[in-house]
Amino acid sequence: MTVFCQRLIDRRDIWEDDMQRRSFLGGLATGSVAASATALATPAIAQNTQTWRMVTAWPKNFPGQGVGAQRLADRITQASGGRLTIQVFSAGELVPPLQSLDAVIDGNAEMSHGASYYWQNKSAGLSLFSGVPYGMTSRELSAWIRHMGGQQLWDDIYDQFGVQGFLAGDTGTQAGGWFRNELTSVADIQGLRFRTPGLGGTVWQQLGASVTNMAAGEIFQALQSGTLDAAEFVGPYNDLALGFHQIAKNYYFPSFIEPALTAELAIDKSKYLALPEDLQAIIRLAAQAEHDEIASDFAANDPRALETLIDDHGVQVRQFPEDILEAGAKAAAEAINSLRDGDELTARAVEGFIAALAIVRRKTELAETPFVRAREQYFKL
Amino acid sequence: MTVFCQRLIDRRDIWEDDMQRRSFLGGLATGSVAASATALATPAIAQNTQTWRMVTAWPKNFPGQGVGAQRLADRITQASGGRLTIQVFSAGELVPPLQSLDAVIDGNAEMSHGASYYWQNKSAGLSLFSGVPYGMTSRELSAWIRHMGGQQLWDDIYDQFGVQGFLAGDTGTQAGGWFRNELTSVADIQGLRFRTPGLGGTVWQQLGASVTNMAAGEIFQALQSGTLDAAEFVGPYNDLALGFHQIAKNYYFPSFIEPALTAELAIDKSKYLALPEDLQAIIRLAAQAEHDEIASDFAANDPRALETLIDDHGVQVRQFPEDILEAGAKAAAEAINSLRDGDELTARAVEGFIAALAIVRRKTELAETPFVRAREQYFKL
Repeated sequence: MTVFCQRLIDRRDIWEDDMQRRSFLGGLATGSVAASATALATPAIAQNTQTWRMVTAWPKNFPGQGVGAQRLADRITQASGGRLTIQVFSAGELVPPLQSLDAVIDGNAEMSHGASYYWQNKSAGLSLFSGVPYGMTSRELSAWIRHMGGQQLWDDIYDQFGVQGFLAGDTGTQAGGWFRNELTSVADIQGLRFRTPGLGGTVWQQLGASVTNMAAGEIFQALQSGTLDAAEFVGPYNDLALGFHQIAKNYYFPSFIEPALTAELAIDKSKYLALPEDLQAIIRLAAQAEHDEIASDFAANDPRALETLIDDHGVQVRQFPEDILEAGAKAAAEAINSLRDGDELTARAVEGFIAALAIVRRKTELAETPFVRAREQYFKL
Repeated sequence: MTVFCQRLIDRRDIWEDDMQRRSFLGGLATGSVAASATALATPAIAQNTQTWRMVTAWPKNFPGQGVGAQRLADRITQASGGRLTIQVFSAGELVPPLQSLDAVIDGNAEMSHGASYYWQNKSAGLSLFSGVPYGMTSRELSAWIRHMGGQQLWDDIYDQFGVQGFLAGDTGTQAGGWFRNELTSVADIQGLRFRTPGLGGTVWQQLGASVTNMAAGEIFQALQSGTLDAAEFVGPYNDLALGFHQIAKNYYFPSFIEPALTAELAIDKSKYLALPEDLQAIIRLAAQAEHDEIASDFAANDPRALETLIDDHGVQVRQFPEDILEAGAKAAAEAINSLRDGDELTARAVEGFIAALAIVRRKTELAETPFVRAREQYFKL
């Protein structure tokens, strides 16, 4: 494992904090765990009826993902006619958000709704299955997972932990961040105090930023006091509520570190396999349907929120200068390549990811994107 | 209703033939209807177990859509534990492909898997819910349907026929077509004998082409004999098998008339509503999951097939000249605007479509496409 790769894995604080900010968002401090995990360790089974616990990495009613997790649970309950009732525990209600996968592994919950890259401290390969700097778009990722061997590579990694993962949501391409001052070149990033988590944080650090992370509720104040120069969170749908636009008016697009952010449904695999086949099928259908539902939600509501930001709050929408995009691409390639030196399953997964990306991007670049470019240029109604 | 709009609706032969070519593809002549529809008119119900018939607009094992219809049926059967077993009849097996929605309306089948725009002769508004020239991409369409009121507008139209429609598949952006000669400007289209169906055919006719349609199996011969100068079908995944590349080496991208082609599951609404709620929920989940599954299939297999076409068959991939894209956009806007003059439900649906497109394209143009452009330009692995 390279030093670079080890550094990625060691930066656990980044994604731990990322989870804490999400908890904060819902007004739930991470410390306020409402119930003891062990007190609820045994699922209720009566007359072929089971109640399962789904812990989530999101606060209650968190737009997009949090609402989606609840809807996913309700859909399984409904489609199973109540034979499998899913009870949702939002971030901090049963366990802290960063411990939601651990809750499944430890048997304290049967399901978790979160994002695979939050668990890259367990296996660096898990960073490939949600959002990768300069990686796959939402549709490209589902093509890899469902029709190009990606699910098997993911399963091989999660089998080490007794977990079954399914795609279950996507934000689409995120925003690049909020900047107090306009960026004219990569030189403007030198020493910039920027808030961003995860692998993307490593990329921004390579570009010269002083990267830090903090809970969402702290970002506003840090921007206001000058502790931060800039910050990225998710995109308009999630960002609008946080008020960054009151301080930093320059809203940059696109995110080159999160071209997609795919959510997962992670399940205790032995309990999943012990279910009757029809209930297993219902879970798979519900997860895949929710993947489409959340992605559609962001596609509908990101642009609506953006309109509000521009029209009501005077936000300036900007594109990153070319030299930043170029330097970001170089740093991203380095970050991805470093995973080749990881454990065997991670190395195999990253080879699969790279090979699939080389194929799927061809249709995106040849058909999908040129169509949108032509429509943008010529089509008015 | 304008003359233009009426002309669109009158051109029923175009999509009828479009269906026949699909039947041909699977080696099933439209005339070879295997069973009398009326002989199978009553669903089997025994011990709370029902068998439903799904007719499809696709030949058996038709890549993408045909395989998807069978998988959708199997998934409903499996998730319902066999309480609702779906039996699939491919194009021509129970009824000819163009009559698959009629089979549902007439009570000869409970479900149909096809594309909404095939039934624009019943209501011009139905042309909005699968693929529109210069219209919505796959994700934009699902955003409109699921989170911006599109489903309600679709329901209002289908309620006239006692049908419930759900999204259930997508090809993504299609290919623009196979051309014997290179296109240098819109002048090259004058008098060009081009095979393309539907609303897109109207657009190409406006550009000066002599548009015709014919069954898929006839296209190859027509190209070879010189009856056709050019043809479009779907995209690499479906086109490869038809051998057009042996005659016309210029493969143009993107299709500006089919930026997405969404399939539908159309159900006898009264029978659907008579089902227990859990079975209704299973059908909805299976349709939405299949929507994602087919879209992922095309995203994975279109570029694989394209690679074969380029590497093994010397196909030249080209982009349409700018003046063709521009003139196509003008003709497409005219075609869409003409729907405003249709019946009240169609007029309301097209207003909804236009308003939603104005919103959803903003994220596509600001985040999704600029990311792909930057990746294409700078990112190498």
